[in-house]
Amino acid sequence: MLIVMQKDATQEQIDRVNEEIKNLGLTPVPIPGSQRIAIGIIGNTGAIDPALFFELDGVKEAIPVSKPYKLVSREVKPENTVIPFGDIKVGGSELTVIAGPCAVESLEQCLTIARAVKKAGAHFFRGGAFKPRTSPYSFQGLGEKGLEILIRVREETGLLIVTEAIDHDVLSLVEEAADIVQIGARNMQNFSLLKRAGKSPKPILLKRGMSATIEELLMAAEYIMAEGNHQIILCERGVRTFADHSRNTLDLSAIPAVKSLSHLPIIVDPSHAAGKRDQVIPLSRGAIAVGAHGLIVEVHHDPLHALSDGPQSLYPEQFEELMRSIRMLAGLPLAAHK
Amino acid sequence: MLIVMQKDATQEQIDRVNEEIKNLGLTPVPIPGSQRIAIGIIGNTGAIDPALFFELDGVKEAIPVSKPYKLVSREVKPENTVIPFGDIKVGGSELTVIAGPCAVESLEQCLTIARAVKKAGAHFFRGGAFKPRTSPYSFQGLGEKGLEILIRVREETGLLIVTEAIDHDVLSLVEEAADIVQIGARNMQNFSLLKRAGKSPKPILLKRGMSATIEELLMAAEYIMAEGNHQIILCERGVRTFADHSRNTLDLSAIPAVKSLSHLPIIVDPSHAAGKRDQVIPLSRGAIAVGAHGLIVEVHHDPLHALSDGPQSLYPEQFEELMRSIRMLAGLPLAAHK
Amino acid sequence: MLIVMQKDATQEQIDRVNEEIKNLGLTPVPIPGSQRIAIGIIGNTGAIDPALFFELDGVKEAIPVSKPYKLVSREVKPENTVIPFGDIKVGGSELTVIAGPCAVESLEQCLTIARAVKKAGAHFFRGGAFKPRTSPYSFQGLGEKGLEILIRVREETGLLIVTEAIDHDVLSLVEEAADIVQIGARNMQNFSLLKRAGKSPKPILLKRGMSATIEELLMAAEYIMAEGNHQIILCERGVRTFADHSRNTLDLSAIPAVKSLSHLPIIVDPSHAAGKRDQVIPLSRGAIAVGAHGLIVEVHHDPLHALSDGPQSLYPEQFEELMRSIRMLAGLPLAAHK
Amino acid sequence: MLIVMQKDATQEQIDRVNEEIKNLGLTPVPIPGSQRIAIGIIGNTGAIDPALFFELDGVKEAIPVSKPYKLVSREVKPENTVIPFGDIKVGGSELTVIAGPCAVESLEQCLTIARAVKKAGAHFFRGGAFKPRTSPYSFQGLGEKGLEILIRVREETGLLIVTEAIDHDVLSLVEEAADIVQIGARNMQNFSLLKRAGKSPKPILLKRGMSATIEELLMAAEYIMAEGNHQIILCERGVRTFADHSRNTLDLSAIPAVKSLSHLPIIVDPSHAAGKRDQVIPLSRGAIAVGAHGLIVEVHHDPLHALSDGPQSLYPEQFEELMRSIRMLAGLPLAAHK
Repeated sequence: MLIVMQKDATQEQIDRVNEEIKNLGLTPVPIPGSQRIAIGIIGNTGAIDPALFFELDGVKEAIPVSKPYKLVSREVKPENTVIPFGDIKVGGSELTVIAGPCAVESLEQCLTIARAVKKAGAHFFRGGAFKPRTSPYSFQGLGEKGLEILIRVREETGLLIVTEAIDHDVLSLVEEAADIVQIGARNMQNFSLLKRAGKSPKPILLKRGMSATIEELLMAAEYIMAEGNHQIILCERGVRTFADHSRNTLDLSAIPAVKSLSHLPIIVDPSHAAGKRDQVIPLSRGAIAVGAHGLIVEVHHDPLHALSDGPQSLYPEQFEELMRSIRMLAGLPLAAHK
Repeated sequence: MLIVMQKDATQEQIDRVNEEIKNLGLTPVPIPGSQRIAIGIIGNTGAIDPALFFELDGVKEAIPVSKPYKLVSREVKPENTVIPFGDIKVGGSELTVIAGPCAVESLEQCLTIARAVKKAGAHFFRGGAFKPRTSPYSFQGLGEKGLEILIRVREETGLLIVTEAIDHDVLSLVEEAADIVQIGARNMQNFSLLKRAGKSPKPILLKRGMSATIEELLMAAEYIMAEGNHQIILCERGVRTFADHSRNTLDLSAIPAVKSLSHLPIIVDPSHAAGKRDQVIPLSRGAIAVGAHGLIVEVHHDPLHALSDGPQSLYPEQFEELMRSIRMLAGLPLAAHK
Repeated sequence: MLIVMQKDATQEQIDRVNEEIKNLGLTPVPIPGSQRIAIGIIGNTGAIDPALFFELDGVKEAIPVSKPYKLVSREVKPENTVIPFGDIKVGGSELTVIAGPCAVESLEQCLTIARAVKKAGAHFFRGGAFKPRTSPYSFQGLGEKGLEILIRVREETGLLIVTEAIDHDVLSLVEEAADIVQIGARNMQNFSLLKRAGKSPKPILLKRGMSATIEELLMAAEYIMAEGNHQIILCERGVRTFADHSRNTLDLSAIPAVKSLSHLPIIVDPSHAAGKRDQVIPLSRGAIAVGAHGLIVEVHHDPLHALSDGPQSLYPEQFEELMRSIRMLAGLPLAAHK
Repeated sequence: MLIVMQKDATQEQIDRVNEEIKNLGLTPVPIPGSQRIAIGIIGNTGAIDPALFFELDGVKEAIPVSKPYKLVSREVKPENTVIPFGDIKVGGSELTVIAGPCAVESLEQCLTIARAVKKAGAHFFRGGAFKPRTSPYSFQGLGEKGLEILIRVREETGLLIVTEAIDHDVLSLVEEAADIVQIGARNMQNFSLLKRAGKSPKPILLKRGMSATIEELLMAAEYIMAEGNHQIILCERGVRTFADHSRNTLDLSAIPAVKSLSHLPIIVDPSHAAGKRDQVIPLSRGAIAVGAHGLIVEVHHDPLHALSDGPQSLYPEQFEELMRSIRMLAGLPLAAHK
């Protein structure tokens, strides 16, 4: 059960609701929002009668929630969340495409790629300035200098910027510089970072962990929303299995599953799933056809010399082909874009 | 290396090639075919010079093969295998759709469903007469009576028939009755059954095992081809992972991976992957968009009372929607249909 | 619910029970046994009152069963199943050790290994005469000649013989020659073969499939028991996961889980799990310590030249070390041997 | 290759080595240590001749390393790492046992459990003050108050303390209070936290991630060592698979695998692997038998009312039984304790 208070509810009214919940032997969980407060009820084993709360002053709604997540749930908010960036609306009727190199390597590299992906129709530029790498001896990113390059890319091309935050300090830097703050798969259950992201004014791109269930992904998003940031874009990027023909196994059934459970937009990263260039275009088509709201794709003009993830990066010409291909799909009346 | 002999090669010529292979310290593997014999070479650790064999009498070609499978490999046969059934060409430029109930329950049930899927555009009717069931106490299929029903369905509707063989005896019955003999996921490495299927005059639909790699799937097909049956349709049907929002995790990256390694057609079974009706249509669209040559889908007019797999069976109206949806995709110039 | 009939129950009495079950809207499943008939009841959603059946003539017991498997269940038979081979009792208080090469290669090879493992304390000799191999071009076993060699090994050494059956025809040969008939992991859900094994007079060693749940393993055993063969030894041999430091991931928690659910003995195959010689001894110790009733281990005197599975085969000296090591464990009052 | 400099090597000598490495077209990676500096060489595709570096001033050793990790590798340091806490030596010839509740709930709860586990023979007390929980609405731990309770437990019982750090700020608090700082499975690839842990004066207990390979686990430890903290205890706690009879699949083959690759001690957490009380004792025995250096076990005197992980917590009497059981194993000459 989620008790949504009226905008102008007083502290007494809130206390009264909390008391009532405790009287039932249950636990109230305050869920502060930017506009109004909500109170989750946990600890119940069966259904609770919403009527118990309607008569209390200051209560706007009492919404039964059958899932462990509440704010991300479509039960609580039936209409799709759409996150606007000027004309671009992530989660809206048009597909969103984010493209760029795995890592920011230099201004020249970024501008070359950014101009190419912009021309082909991308909306956002991606590029890691702070890189989570399996080895401490691998290139760890250009850091703050990388963020400056990303800002220059936005100025020069008009593309909006997505880049990853790997801890609290980096998140503070990234939310200054970027338009969307990415939380990577390895940090999907870094709950401390999720709470910090929940206090950010910037939308969050939250990638599914390598062995996370859909419920765990939604619970991670709930951590962010419970802190007040309701602008979340989910991302399927493949899960770890025994299969060895792709780096991870892209789980496209997650798209309809998430869309039926949650109102949040969900996009697909075919590049990290495949780990190989030649699967990226087919998987991108598949992602759009199952109903994803967009893609995040790695593109590099010189993948042989890329400092990371070269083998899975598309050449700019291939990215153009990808865009042509998904535009045709997007023209169809697919459930994806409803 | 695969040495392909000329059609009229004599036994002496073949013996001479075998001898030459043994002289190199390697092992010849005769691969008898309906038209001509081929000789695989195994045991080599590096490349073998094809020129060693060109000068021998009776040798048509010497094809280097870098994979453990030979006959299924695109290296050996670059052009797609197309399996014709009159006007229907599996693996050709048009999608193939196989639809029907999980199990044959009665003539009336089958005819009701067959007429509905035929009207919607299906090419083949599926229905199990011999069912591999996890429990010995579950409905095991109508057996031979079920095959008779399938024959009646073909007579009444013109739909071709796909049904599963679960052992040697059943395969002998099924190859009499059906147009395509299915080998199920649980039997993908029942090598004895694969060898028997390799001697069948009927095309084989070979489903990927629940935890089979792509290489193992292709090796299973190689078992069938090595016995002389070159008409094989592969099928991706989901693999077993930790994910619990679908019954199995549909691995759509297997489609481009298989298509680059093998010339055999590959279709997708979204019903067994999903285990839930509401994921079937999106996954079908995804399958076609990544390039599958067709679909095998469960449809039931009364899934609540189906004797097996009710929850994943589409209603006939949903199957019509599926067909409309994939026809639009099929109209696009997707790599899938090249 | 399982209705166990008295030994001398008449057909009328049985029919009467079946009728009573149908009157309740449920389905009777006759489960013929060597001594007496039992009748499983399926189709119930809640508990059934056993008292309904006590008053019927010929009924010995009415046992509530909460699991989908019945005959293998500890609910139905609380005491451990012990399978006697003269002095050797599989599932009894002493550990059982099966050892030998992956494949029977020659009489000399088998006798060399058999004498070594006998000396070290093994009870059974293993060796495949019919080999299920991933590739059709790999060594497929010596076939009937291999069985003759195994019979000679028994004559010469007194070791009992375990060897694999891969289809109906081979099972008929193997049950003549061997003391235990093995059903391999790839055939765990070859239900047709399981039914045939259920009619064999010989005990069956049933290996867990590569991605089988414990419930599926027990259901596979139920197939065998439902046909009348109650002498089954289960075997954990590793499951397929993403982990790459061993060939499969040995799931030792399956041992206590199976032992609490079923009365059947369970042993462990550390060799196929590890795929590497140096993990075999530690995993064998682990297997005994968690409570397995025994081991099946690959041993070869010349693994570098073994025709299959050389890298995971122990040298005879290592097998001696293994035996010393587990004998010390077996001396401890571990739950395993209770 | 790892170049180990002499203790008193000068900056010029170090620069000279770096230069030499660059002249070879390779990249030097400085690895600062508390006693001496080492320089890793990365970017080589084949072997490097150690002799190239012997003649340079200040060079102590040039160690060829075939793995991507260097400092954790047994190639670099063949003898076991032993971490002393007074008389207790983790990684030494005696087993180390860490026991206690999942979460610190109250002083009384902790003292009750601590006294029981101390009496039974545990060396360390575990208890989470800051809990990483899947749901934001679950109990998140008592925080700093929990740390105070843990300090009291140490004062009262003499047990040393292990507790988890979930971010930089918490790590600073925990390293003040605890004797061992735990990094949990969900943070195994939180590289920012690993780097921070590498600067801690306290030993780190690093748990394997839910879908981490052994190589990734060792690379995570390398992150910590590369920052100068060489006191690391690894921990296997089960990986995520399709199997559903235990919460995670305990991968005991990881123990011999890690021990052959690395000199670091490794212990096992049977409680989180099993998720069920009745598998904990058998798995503990298995862990010791395969060669683990110790255990971390959840114990609660009132698991029904535990605020987290009640179902997998042992009762104190069961923990006593566990200790008796593993003491008998530990008395055997197992490779584990060599």
